[in-house]
Amino acid sequence: MSIVLAANQYGKSRVRLVKVERNGARHNLTDLNVDIQLRGDFAASYLQGDNRNVLPTDTMKNTVYALAGQHAMGQIEEFGLRLADHFLSRNPQVSAASIAISQNNWQRFHDHAFLRGGEERRTAVVHQDRATTTIRSGIDNLVILKTAGSAFTGYIRDQYTTLKETRDRIFGTAVQAEWIAQDQSYAVNRKAVRETILQIFAEHASEGVQHTIYAIGEAILDRVEAISEIRLVMPNRHCLLVDLSPFDQENPNEVFQPIDEPHGLIEATIRRG
Amino acid sequence: MSIVLAANQYGKSRVRLVKVERNGARHNLTDLNVDIQLRGDFAASYLQGDNRNVLPTDTMKNTVYALAGQHAMGQIEEFGLRLADHFLSRNPQVSAASIAISQNNWQRFHDHAFLRGGEERRTAVVHQDRATTTIRSGIDNLVILKTAGSAFTGYIRDQYTTLKETRDRIFGTAVQAEWIAQDQSYAVNRKAVRETILQIFAEHASEGVQHTIYAIGEAILDRVEAISEIRLVMPNRHCLLVDLSPFDQENPNEVFQPIDEPHGLIEATIRRG
Amino acid sequence: MSIVLAANQYGKSRVRLVKVERNGARHNLTDLNVDIQLRGDFAASYLQGDNRNVLPTDTMKNTVYALAGQHAMGQIEEFGLRLADHFLSRNPQVSAASIAISQNNWQRFHDHAFLRGGEERRTAVVHQDRATTTIRSGIDNLVILKTAGSAFTGYIRDQYTTLKETRDRIFGTAVQAEWIAQDQSYAVNRKAVRETILQIFAEHASEGVQHTIYAIGEAILDRVEAISEIRLVMPNRHCLLVDLSPFDQENPNEVFQPIDEPHGLIEATIRRG
Amino acid sequence: MSIVLAANQYGKSRVRLVKVERNGARHNLTDLNVDIQLRGDFAASYLQGDNRNVLPTDTMKNTVYALAGQHAMGQIEEFGLRLADHFLSRNPQVSAASIAISQNNWQRFHDHAFLRGGEERRTAVVHQDRATTTIRSGIDNLVILKTAGSAFTGYIRDQYTTLKETRDRIFGTAVQAEWIAQDQSYAVNRKAVRETILQIFAEHASEGVQHTIYAIGEAILDRVEAISEIRLVMPNRHCLLVDLSPFDQENPNEVFQPIDEPHGLIEATIRRG
Repeated sequence: MSIVLAANQYGKSRVRLVKVERNGARHNLTDLNVDIQLRGDFAASYLQGDNRNVLPTDTMKNTVYALAGQHAMGQIEEFGLRLADHFLSRNPQVSAASIAISQNNWQRFHDHAFLRGGEERRTAVVHQDRATTTIRSGIDNLVILKTAGSAFTGYIRDQYTTLKETRDRIFGTAVQAEWIAQDQSYAVNRKAVRETILQIFAEHASEGVQHTIYAIGEAILDRVEAISEIRLVMPNRHCLLVDLSPFDQENPNEVFQPIDEPHGLIEATIRRG
Repeated sequence: MSIVLAANQYGKSRVRLVKVERNGARHNLTDLNVDIQLRGDFAASYLQGDNRNVLPTDTMKNTVYALAGQHAMGQIEEFGLRLADHFLSRNPQVSAASIAISQNNWQRFHDHAFLRGGEERRTAVVHQDRATTTIRSGIDNLVILKTAGSAFTGYIRDQYTTLKETRDRIFGTAVQAEWIAQDQSYAVNRKAVRETILQIFAEHASEGVQHTIYAIGEAILDRVEAISEIRLVMPNRHCLLVDLSPFDQENPNEVFQPIDEPHGLIEATIRRG
Repeated sequence: MSIVLAANQYGKSRVRLVKVERNGARHNLTDLNVDIQLRGDFAASYLQGDNRNVLPTDTMKNTVYALAGQHAMGQIEEFGLRLADHFLSRNPQVSAASIAISQNNWQRFHDHAFLRGGEERRTAVVHQDRATTTIRSGIDNLVILKTAGSAFTGYIRDQYTTLKETRDRIFGTAVQAEWIAQDQSYAVNRKAVRETILQIFAEHASEGVQHTIYAIGEAILDRVEAISEIRLVMPNRHCLLVDLSPFDQENPNEVFQPIDEPHGLIEATIRRG
Repeated sequence: MSIVLAANQYGKSRVRLVKVERNGARHNLTDLNVDIQLRGDFAASYLQGDNRNVLPTDTMKNTVYALAGQHAMGQIEEFGLRLADHFLSRNPQVSAASIAISQNNWQRFHDHAFLRGGEERRTAVVHQDRATTTIRSGIDNLVILKTAGSAFTGYIRDQYTTLKETRDRIFGTAVQAEWIAQDQSYAVNRKAVRETILQIFAEHASEGVQHTIYAIGEAILDRVEAISEIRLVMPNRHCLLVDLSPFDQENPNEVFQPIDEPHGLIEATIRRG
């Protein structure tokens, strides 16, 4: 039996780009992290060390900067499309390009000054091959927490159950959302998704993370006609109620120990059927 | 020559606390990290393994939760004072207690729902011994960036100089500020410090990080009478102008590569003289 | 058009376990991180908040500790199988269980004392459904670097090429390997994989990361008959040659600036054909 | 009352350097992180934005690479001295230079190939002013754990005590050590310190972290005549015994949950008296 190269891909990760666009005194700031991966006819580089078909990852990095200089920035989906198209159109040996972009969050507080607005990020993954293009828009690390309207009861009890049922717990999470839309209204859709996540999360009478995740996904599909499918991932970042009874104190759901690990991890894909 | 225990201290770090305070439907959320360090008559525990004077660090952790349950939260300076006072008043062997608190930043978007507002933190260090109490209030990791009004010229040139002078560069930093005030208006002072940092950073015609750091410190002392001394630390998180000339493109201060390392690190203490 | 729950799964992540096994004075230490994900008939929890089919993630965590107490630890693949089997056999609503384990690296330096041996980890992913069981054994974060025997030439040159060809560069990487074997000799196979990675990495006359990755994979399949398929991921952690010519110094491949970002990212799956 | 610049310093942090030294086929690899801080007559840069006395931090970075190219690497203490001397001798406006170096740990497994040996680091801080030079050698992040020979009993009990006394617990820590020596045998001293830490940690019948920290420091001063003073910092990285009694299982000190936070933090300075 022989040995074969069954699959391969390569590219450049963590290309950092800051672009400043000036319209008079009022500047726009874009701060991106770009990952590029190519698939195609690269077998000779693996098998014989023959690099004639290899576009160096250093050139991929340069291409990010060059294209950023040539065009108005636009939405990250548009920049991803521009990069994917570049690599496919110039490189016949490439069969597919995948461009993953994540945008850091800066909030303007002055014409030319910006405040880092947390670790929430806008994301886009553009996957393009010779036949099709798929764009997944997203929001990552939207860290939210609510102090009411969250229960967890009625679950399976087995020999290893120690968790107590509760009708009132803290619900903290870091939402990751990724969707496919049928139009190019990237910014409008993202804004609608984000607002819906925040509103439903806050108002939903949650019987569990699963219950809330579906309510959020359903509301997004209800409200944003262009979105055909959304995947939501929500860790359950537990806040443990501290037992103050050894100190003869009550703890009426007030004092908690937040823990980073372990954490629940719940996900769902919701789409039009 | 003998061997002596010249100095020692011990305590508990990274005690995580979330406190929820409910006023009807509108909840308040406090999310803290608490570090405790005690000094005192602990030599027997080091030299003979005699722990009779040792308050276990586990008990320090419990004390954080117990005191959090007993009192309204207040400002972090007040919680730090309560903890320092507790350890000193109950433990005659303790000569000094140092309580360092950092508060995570949550922004309300609903009566009982909150959005994590970035990695900026409020800080307080309460140091109390049998004679004096010192409170250092602070802000940490205020990440800001400006795209105009920053120059760096006229510096020393030696055989290892390659940096080019510039009248227009990006200036990005993560401000750490720590001050001593003569009153107890912790929240008011912190708000004034933060607003002054943002305003001066944006508006100052900077000739270097040093120049801006002093301008900020001076403006804070000008505006907040209660503050007698402030220490400011500002890394220079460089954004390198990308050389696009190999691609026959100009780069009129638009396309940058932000780097995390190396970075400049500038600090100053400014006080009333 | 209706809205449907297209896919879902949930579980517990980052369950930390330390197990000590004592054979007289000589102790064994196992330090694991366990992630559990279940698929199955959970739609009611998402759609109606009905948790009757939900095994709480807290119970999953307890199960890790309970099973760790009941059995000798064995290899991580065996512990993963034990957990997967537990969840499937006790929970008819579960259609598939995925258990991902990563083992921290401690080196014994005394009968009962251990030194943390770096961030290299052993990994295993056990995926079990009602029909099949798949075990992927692995090594993660094996950080290695060589200072000779690495070239990169003969690649595509386009308008965005600035990289210079080199016959002598530093090659640094953090190997991730994941394989499927047809026997249960987990420890023996892992040892052979690891030794082969180290040997081939050091000795191979590399014409590029792709070239080396294939040479390593091929050698592993050559030497370890039980392994039918291996996936290798190797970032290219660049060390940039520092230009000392402005200081009238030569730099004969001696002084480098290592950078964390951007980095190349190369992968391949190699199998018997 | 006027406003004054009470203190200031500035410099470059996280200058990353890899140096390769070739002696025929056998290569040596040095991988450093260098931080530089200067004090001196810099007031004009703060007060007036006059940079005539400012050596740019970019030049400091270049200097690290230039000096690395000019000299054999030697020990990190020697490289730190070379840098401190450079900045003081060429810059009359500088009153003091502080150079902090940390060296990553690579283990040779081939003439020109190296394996990253964990996150343990060698450190050196050289502080030099116009009158004196102080060198602090160190070891950082030596992560060790023992499964026997560690007790904690006889401590203070108060109203917030819940910790149970134990004669047999896990003791895990990450040792930070920093010492002053009266000779230049940097490598020999560091080796002796490291071996003593490992041996005493393993063999000492510990009644608490304080007890062990002193035993280690005392043994180091006993064995290494040149060391006049050592500071040791040891977090107590707790492994919590898991309560398996709800599952009718015993847990004879076998199954633990390691936690990262909170952790104890114990330190001591031990010197010849």
